[in-house]
Amino acid sequence: MSLELDYLFHPRSIAVVGASTDPQQQGHSFLKLHLNNGFKGKVYAVNPKAKEILGVTSYSSLLDIPEEVDYVISCIPSGVVPQLIDEASRKGVKVVHLYTARFSETGRQEDAQLEQEVLRRARASGIRVIGPNCMGIYYAREGLVFMDGFPKESGPVAMLSQSGGNAVELISAASTRGVRFSKVISYGNAVDLNEADFLDYLADDPETRVICASIEGTKDGRRLFQVLKRCTGQKPVVIMKAGRTGAGAKAVASHTASLAGSQQVWEAMCRQAGAVLVSSLEEQADALVTLHFLKPTVGVRVGIVGGSGGRSVASADQCEEAGLKVIPLPEDLRKKLRDESPLLGDWVSNPTDTSILGGSSLTVCKVLAMMAEHPDFDILIAHAGESFGLGRPGGVQRVLQTLDSYLAIGRSTAKPMAIILGDSLVENERQRETIVEMRRRCIEAGVATFPTVSRAARALRMFGDYFRHRAEADSFK
Amino acid sequence: MSLELDYLFHPRSIAVVGASTDPQQQGHSFLKLHLNNGFKGKVYAVNPKAKEILGVTSYSSLLDIPEEVDYVISCIPSGVVPQLIDEASRKGVKVVHLYTARFSETGRQEDAQLEQEVLRRARASGIRVIGPNCMGIYYAREGLVFMDGFPKESGPVAMLSQSGGNAVELISAASTRGVRFSKVISYGNAVDLNEADFLDYLADDPETRVICASIEGTKDGRRLFQVLKRCTGQKPVVIMKAGRTGAGAKAVASHTASLAGSQQVWEAMCRQAGAVLVSSLEEQADALVTLHFLKPTVGVRVGIVGGSGGRSVASADQCEEAGLKVIPLPEDLRKKLRDESPLLGDWVSNPTDTSILGGSSLTVCKVLAMMAEHPDFDILIAHAGESFGLGRPGGVQRVLQTLDSYLAIGRSTAKPMAIILGDSLVENERQRETIVEMRRRCIEAGVATFPTVSRAARALRMFGDYFRHRAEADSFK
Repeated sequence: MSLELDYLFHPRSIAVVGASTDPQQQGHSFLKLHLNNGFKGKVYAVNPKAKEILGVTSYSSLLDIPEEVDYVISCIPSGVVPQLIDEASRKGVKVVHLYTARFSETGRQEDAQLEQEVLRRARASGIRVIGPNCMGIYYAREGLVFMDGFPKESGPVAMLSQSGGNAVELISAASTRGVRFSKVISYGNAVDLNEADFLDYLADDPETRVICASIEGTKDGRRLFQVLKRCTGQKPVVIMKAGRTGAGAKAVASHTASLAGSQQVWEAMCRQAGAVLVSSLEEQADALVTLHFLKPTVGVRVGIVGGSGGRSVASADQCEEAGLKVIPLPEDLRKKLRDESPLLGDWVSNPTDTSILGGSSLTVCKVLAMMAEHPDFDILIAHAGESFGLGRPGGVQRVLQTLDSYLAIGRSTAKPMAIILGDSLVENERQRETIVEMRRRCIEAGVATFPTVSRAARALRMFGDYFRHRAEADSFK
Repeated sequence: MSLELDYLFHPRSIAVVGASTDPQQQGHSFLKLHLNNGFKGKVYAVNPKAKEILGVTSYSSLLDIPEEVDYVISCIPSGVVPQLIDEASRKGVKVVHLYTARFSETGRQEDAQLEQEVLRRARASGIRVIGPNCMGIYYAREGLVFMDGFPKESGPVAMLSQSGGNAVELISAASTRGVRFSKVISYGNAVDLNEADFLDYLADDPETRVICASIEGTKDGRRLFQVLKRCTGQKPVVIMKAGRTGAGAKAVASHTASLAGSQQVWEAMCRQAGAVLVSSLEEQADALVTLHFLKPTVGVRVGIVGGSGGRSVASADQCEEAGLKVIPLPEDLRKKLRDESPLLGDWVSNPTDTSILGGSSLTVCKVLAMMAEHPDFDILIAHAGESFGLGRPGGVQRVLQTLDSYLAIGRSTAKPMAIILGDSLVENERQRETIVEMRRRCIEAGVATFPTVSRAARALRMFGDYFRHRAEADSFK
């Protein structure tokens, strides 16, 4: 058990040092967000050039604040950070989050030395440092946040990200699809607190059921491996390793001054530790949606309904290529289909092509319900947002009705079910808005949505791999 | 030269046989679309049960139409199609498009025999058949169309697709990003006219500069290879082969009764013929956007600007993994950067991380302009739609200004440039609509847009491969 870092997420008071009067500056945003976003503790502004910012007194120095300060957000230039650490130490501050950048990542020796000096002073005074060069903490439950528009509700997914930009993009992409977060930490150059510290904490965090991490490098691979292994025994961990190529590793150096390390070593470590390794933000979002919404399965036998003929073929190919099994319809299920429609009974297959069902009493929803009940299917995929269906006369209404029937099946089955919504990038505004509405209904029903079947298939495959690895690991215990 | 099929696209009159009074039926849509969508010739309805549909006389039979009919669209049940072919023959019809389905694809012997009987009668009378089991022709210039909402303007891209659904989805996905079409043919079971016939025609079609095809199978691989080779010598050909896996091949059989064939054979054929092979509709759309908008290049050295640090790293990795080269900044370019900003000159790299430029006179647009001018870069990629940038105070305005500067550079450079717009799959409506507006500006400027850098990188790599193959092939002539 290592919940000792829990105090990071429960400051009683926050001081924004380098609070700004300019709304475009992050030193303004940090102050505004903590004043107005549900943080219950006290929030102080420090800026010697201002008397008041956003209605609160602006102090000349951290030391001028009359009450205690637990947590400092630093938006001042790097050169004065060592002095800030000293003042924080005298003030009894527990945590300093350095939004301040331009330390080792500039590649200049004096900046790297400055970073080490900051670390030395923090260590000497027992202050923990998040960063430098990062966005810090988003913890909705306590009102800690680093960007406007993040969900106010909490959820089961924790995230670590060296990059603040990636954290923002992933929060946006995943929350749009209904994922909610327990704790997010953007931790930049990781001069003090690093990925292993946070993973170790999150392994035991009762608010966290799924962990994802965007990591550019580590200073202690052995410890990371041990912590990672402990984590994956408790909950799934999805890792995007950045800096996989030569050019990527160079970009990592000028971003967070991390040593990217060998991609083969990272792959081996994740495989042995049972972590899911992804290579893009899209894959990471897909993995989170899957782990957030779907009931665990170790199976790979998939039943697919709802596309036209062309999409049925593509779905079969893409699922098989991702390692799922698109099994033929079982004979007893086919018998039921024959009873329903003698003409279609031998023609309908898996995937079920919607367009051949016209004029019969057989619908894709009936086929999906049969697949949901049948023990041979482990996973269900249903298509709902094809341009073909949406664009036909009365199409929007029909597509929404079909979706509602899918969702009723999704609510009652114990099998994981993915809905393919199609791309919300379409020119036609009505279609675009329909897809947004469909997504809203899916999230409300607690169902996972994907823009394409190939992305769903890859995510579902990784999901099964994790649970199989977990089951094998458990069987050795 | 084989433009003999040109008459398919220039009928003087069309009869919709099986025209329907029910707006939900395709037999109604075909009539409505050709009456109201700019088709200049005469349009006739045939349905013995109606007197008038959509304001035009409904004839009891094709033979009752008092004038000549060039082109018949059949929406009647399969069993009466042989009789329709006989009547079409007596009427002097040149082309029958069989929207009618339930022929060989049902898997029943009598339906396959019926299909052969239709072919026999058509051959005997010199009628050419498109289909059966397909959507037919979309040719905006003549007002031929099979779905509401397709662009009314023409463009340089021709498409073949056995699946009507895939054709609709690809038209929607690609036209949303500015692609316009010369001729689209959905050709279903291909009982008479097949992929080789259409490719042979499109190779010489002066309205077509790019060809894409979604193919499920062929009956004559040798001829297809010869035709394909001839095509790729004239213009790029992008092929999505469906039915690549066992389950996919099964789905192909029940969709268009095609024999999917061996994927290895298809891969070898496309490689030898110099066609670009893709495996999803998304990849196909990306390839079309690339070929539609970008200036040809055989180079792979890419310059990237505009992401935050995390996205810069991801861009470097994903471009390198796709086979592009993310080269270091050349020394003479770096000297210019040092002149502009001594502090940043040695820190800025390729990809250029936007977030480190704050407070200096250096902007990503200046770096992009330098890359555009510098001979070491073959391809440019610029990020424009990150949630991070859009969500900050004043962000939308700033992002749009940056985009306009990118587009000015894109207009003046001879190098291919791709704009990464980010996913419009965002919850925030203002951000979503901003991305739609950004896309509009890009299309107007004739610039290619992609939702993610990994999709752009793969498309740009295939694009270079095609032009390199073409240059090599030409050097042997």
